[in-house]
Amino acid sequence: MSWFLQQRGALEAAQEMIKEEIAEKLDIKQLIASDSLNTFRIADLGCATGPNTFLAVQTILEAVQPKFGSQNSQTFPEFQVFFSDLVSNDFNTLFKSLPPQSQRPYFAAGVPGSFHGPLFPKASLNFVHSSCALNWLSQVPKSVSERTSSAWNAGKILYSSSSSREVTEAYSCQFANDMGLFLQARANELVGGGLMALVIPGLSDGILFSETSSALQFELLGSTLVSMANMGLVSKEKVDCFNLPVYFPSLEELKAIIERNREFRIEKMEAISPPKMKTEPKQCISGLKAVFEGIIGKHFGSNVTEELFEQCSIKAAEPSVLLLDTDMPTLHVLVVILKHNGNGNA
Amino acid sequence: MSWFLQQRGALEAAQEMIKEEIAEKLDIKQLIASDSLNTFRIADLGCATGPNTFLAVQTILEAVQPKFGSQNSQTFPEFQVFFSDLVSNDFNTLFKSLPPQSQRPYFAAGVPGSFHGPLFPKASLNFVHSSCALNWLSQVPKSVSERTSSAWNAGKILYSSSSSREVTEAYSCQFANDMGLFLQARANELVGGGLMALVIPGLSDGILFSETSSALQFELLGSTLVSMANMGLVSKEKVDCFNLPVYFPSLEELKAIIERNREFRIEKMEAISPPKMKTEPKQCISGLKAVFEGIIGKHFGSNVTEELFEQCSIKAAEPSVLLLDTDMPTLHVLVVILKHNGNGNA
Repeated sequence: MSWFLQQRGALEAAQEMIKEEIAEKLDIKQLIASDSLNTFRIADLGCATGPNTFLAVQTILEAVQPKFGSQNSQTFPEFQVFFSDLVSNDFNTLFKSLPPQSQRPYFAAGVPGSFHGPLFPKASLNFVHSSCALNWLSQVPKSVSERTSSAWNAGKILYSSSSSREVTEAYSCQFANDMGLFLQARANELVGGGLMALVIPGLSDGILFSETSSALQFELLGSTLVSMANMGLVSKEKVDCFNLPVYFPSLEELKAIIERNREFRIEKMEAISPPKMKTEPKQCISGLKAVFEGIIGKHFGSNVTEELFEQCSIKAAEPSVLLLDTDMPTLHVLVVILKHNGNGNA
Repeated sequence: MSWFLQQRGALEAAQEMIKEEIAEKLDIKQLIASDSLNTFRIADLGCATGPNTFLAVQTILEAVQPKFGSQNSQTFPEFQVFFSDLVSNDFNTLFKSLPPQSQRPYFAAGVPGSFHGPLFPKASLNFVHSSCALNWLSQVPKSVSERTSSAWNAGKILYSSSSSREVTEAYSCQFANDMGLFLQARANELVGGGLMALVIPGLSDGILFSETSSALQFELLGSTLVSMANMGLVSKEKVDCFNLPVYFPSLEELKAIIERNREFRIEKMEAISPPKMKTEPKQCISGLKAVFEGIIGKHFGSNVTEELFEQCSIKAAEPSVLLLDTDMPTLHVLVVILKHNGNGNA
């Protein structure tokens, strides 16, 4: 799922880039040397229910298969794809949307669990992909929801221009911690020479999140909640302790985390700028709703959530509230291609 | 799921037998020689939604693990378990019932699809288990639902004492065909030396299905449908073309199919007799309902199905309708332990 409508074009560019990187960087000889490689195993982490995960897998297969030569060649492997997401994901829908076994060039499996921990046996994967999923934190950083903390983020739902420095730092720390756990788990699961392609909406260097048009959308959501509290439609207490568990890292930040892990070589790292396009404010709000209504509904109840997005939609239509077609900076799509250093454990 | 309440005791005995057979027949040296065996992969085919599948996996693990020595030994592998069933299975419920990753000694995955065809890459499994699932046919044999066929099974829902020989033959052929496809697919997927444990409610030699107490239950279901048609509660046409896609093979029959396939050595084959126990007719009917209401509801609608089981329950309570505590033969539980012959493809 794309986080913001505006990013769709950039996500397509990211898929193209992954394809090129596989063609260039996937070293089949290295993989074969470390394993008999009858089966090439791919995992998509944070797959949701499709169809994006199926398209991503198709992209990967189209790039990987030619590297093994013709389908009749001795070394041409079978492919097994693991679709993974949280236990709460709707795997029934995912499985029903899969092309039937006879019409797809891979065996499919679903893996329930958090990608912040182990999901697969040691050295059992040849390729890992994850798109628009690592932005989800394992939890809201504790301090931002605590009234007594210096990072208490009352009346806001994410680190924003009016949040204190402590809030942004707490979010940044949580992301670094989660991403560290992710890399540690994958380092164990990927064979030596295996590639990992990560697509993460985030910031190009030098831009702050609060300066982006996406931040405006979250601020609108937050200020609408505060208005609703002022009108007595929702408890102020509930609004003050609510924050979203999402983060948009910068390229720089991501690079530092990966280098700290030391298990992966960065093959490519780029922030793709989304194409400039005019988006209707109403569309933006329904995009936000699709992503966040579950988590907001869980905290506030579904009535409040309906009312919230209704009011946001009205507000967003006012001139000067969401300046989405201006030259304001936008979130970029960060694409990272990593190669696993390990070599002896496959 | 057990097909008939009476079999529960036999199913427990079957699990014990599987455990003993693993201890005796699983040749770890052979497996290691043909593969580096970092990961021991187990599949449960026809897993449904638990908890039986989790118990079966636990049984298998308890028998397999000691064969690798201590958990600290160099050769002690990680375990990956594939829970497989039809796409229509409720995998969401299955995944939610799984013990959390940190509390189970294996990585879990779900695999949607029919076990009458390929589900896994070549030589990628070390152990296959399937309990009470191979009784489901891939379809009702075509001829038994066709008015023009000599095997037309009007007014009955399964091969029974009043069905023609052609009906029973059509069912037997369909089972042999399905079982053949199952064995062919598994022969490709299991490594050489890999074991397969099949638990299939069926007949001990010399007993006909129509002589068993289980057949009585199906006949009651069928005759109740016919009464309902006579009362105008359901269309006679619909009753005449309805048959259940299930079969209960004999030990002999199963043996012949396995030998025809030639890819497996029979390590053990036994018909376990269920313990004699008195079962309340009402319980039997609700057991049948649990297994068949989905498939019956799909054909007749849910109102008819409710009425059907209601009427069956009333009829079953009449003395002499379901003689379940007599010395009538019962379905046995067939346990088959097979070892895959293949040796070069792992």
